Amino acid sequence: METSTPAVRIREVGLRDGLQSIARTLPTELKLEWLRGAFAAGLREIEVGSFVPPRLLPQLADTAAVVEAALKLPGLVVSVLVPNLKGAERALESGAHAMLLPLSASHAHSLANLRKTPDDVLAEIAAIRALRDSAGSPCRLEVGLSTAFGCTIQGRVEPDEVLRLVQGALDAGADRVGLADTVGYADPKQVRELFERARAIAGDRLACGHFHDTRGLGIANVMAAYGTGERRFDACLAGIGGCPHAPGASGNVATEDLAYLFASMGDDTGIDFQELIALRARVAQWLEGEALHGSIARAGLPKTMKEAA
Amino acid sequence: METSTPAVRIREVGLRDGLQSIARTLPTELKLEWLRGAFAAGLREIEVGSFVPPRLLPQLADTAAVVEAALKLPGLVVSVLVPNLKGAERALESGAHAMLLPLSASHAHSLANLRKTPDDVLAEIAAIRALRDSAGSPCRLEVGLSTAFGCTIQGRVEPDEVLRLVQGALDAGADRVGLADTVGYADPKQVRELFERARAIAGDRLACGHFHDTRGLGIANVMAAYGTGERRFDACLAGIGGCPHAPGASGNVATEDLAYLFASMGDDTGIDFQELIALRARVAQWLEGEALHGSIARAGLPKTMKEAA
Repeated sequence: METSTPAVRIREVGLRDGLQSIARTLPTELKLEWLRGAFAAGLREIEVGSFVPPRLLPQLADTAAVVEAALKLPGLVVSVLVPNLKGAERALESGAHAMLLPLSASHAHSLANLRKTPDDVLAEIAAIRALRDSAGSPCRLEVGLSTAFGCTIQGRVEPDEVLRLVQGALDAGADRVGLADTVGYADPKQVRELFERARAIAGDRLACGHFHDTRGLGIANVMAAYGTGERRFDACLAGIGGCPHAPGASGNVATEDLAYLFASMGDDTGIDFQELIALRARVAQWLEGEALHGSIARAGLPKTMKEAA
Repeated sequence: METSTPAVRIREVGLRDGLQSIARTLPTELKLEWLRGAFAAGLREIEVGSFVPPRLLPQLADTAAVVEAALKLPGLVVSVLVPNLKGAERALESGAHAMLLPLSASHAHSLANLRKTPDDVLAEIAAIRALRDSAGSPCRLEVGLSTAFGCTIQGRVEPDEVLRLVQGALDAGADRVGLADTVGYADPKQVRELFERARAIAGDRLACGHFHDTRGLGIANVMAAYGTGERRFDACLAGIGGCPHAPGASGNVATEDLAYLFASMGDDTGIDFQELIALRARVAQWLEGEALHGSIARAGLPKTMKEAA
């Protein structure tokens, strides 16, 4: 399924994490144009939507149609977010290659976001794994530890609790786990320490860093995780995104800034920078009036990289 | 002179690097209010101006008056930029504690900025050192290697040339050297490698990192230098600043964002965050209409740090 093996894998989450934080609903046709543009720019793993009830997130009500279109792009890993067993059923029906279940390390955030305690969610993960296995589906089950570095509702989140849930998710049958700074509270020291400890538990199954740039430390946090060996990161074109249940959260790290970071350091991501910037310009038109972020689209590539290209 | 020894030293350069990039001239009284506000916020090293000819930078023509006021603040290290021997004479007369001479590692930038080759500047450094010694002054002579990571005019700058100039500056009598990403071209890998190599030459005399956030990597680059042992950084309130001879350069890393970064990691900088943010709000009024930067002033401190405070 994955034909190339770039040094760093960037997973585009704009169509899910980005669009769910924006009140307007982007028409399906424009989502498909975004999807195809991202694919053309070299992105090979895209979270295309979420199987949540449409009354909760009408912006993502067309997720099944977007998955269907995405599955036609050769070599693309199509992933969706699922909040629970019901969402997982729909994900398995859709034929998506991977489903991501968020597990809030913050008890308070878990109750607000999913109306379940973290341990209830662990039980749900086990049920999803059993469902997936009984269906004989190859769909990858990934668990994202959200609010792993702090929470706008609860404040501090204990690293020991995060690590207990990492172990719990693996025990419940998750194929992969990731650590997410859902609300932009992390700093590089915290990231290094938690990724090191989580990797000691999960090994290669720790396979995603998800950072928001709310307080300007997003890229530095990506680098801190990278320093511990992490090579797969979520990002969102133009840095849009957030969490509806975490007040103040805004802005994933921008895909184009991450692509620039790794290209500058000589790490292949498979991304064509000019294609990505051209797509960003189109997305900016579709989302006119929304707050966009990211530095490189404004400043342009340095002369040193233009010479190399 | 320096009474406290914080884990990390942030040198505020807004009154020089910031204001020289802005067309309007801030009245001396407001500069002094900024200076006193920065001191009240705990900053203990401030670059207060530049002894360049007033016809070139009328914004900084009152530098001598600002130095005079700054010298009255107990425990403050007062530094000034000097472009040449003539500027150094004025710095020594002013009683400033430190003078910073920029040495462009880019030949093309050096000619554009100082109308001298880098080797001409090395000769100037030796003359300044001789002048300082003959005057019996304790004024510290610091050399900032500008465009050390690339140049908007020349493009690539060879690391070997930067290191040759680091050695040359020390041989010419500089007390300290620093590495500056004047135009925002650096990436964390480049920063780590160059700081490691420069430290092998200069040891503890390598004592400053100066990073612009032009392409969003400023904080990550600070962290990369920090990872090699660097503990002193330039920054500019509200992230203003640039270089008039390096087109496209804009925005030092924001002082308040660096203060937040280090506070979050538990490294003392001696900075009172609330005082600093209050000062930023006043400076924003004085500079109304200018582009300000920085994330933390917009997003606010995370709940975890408010609880700790």
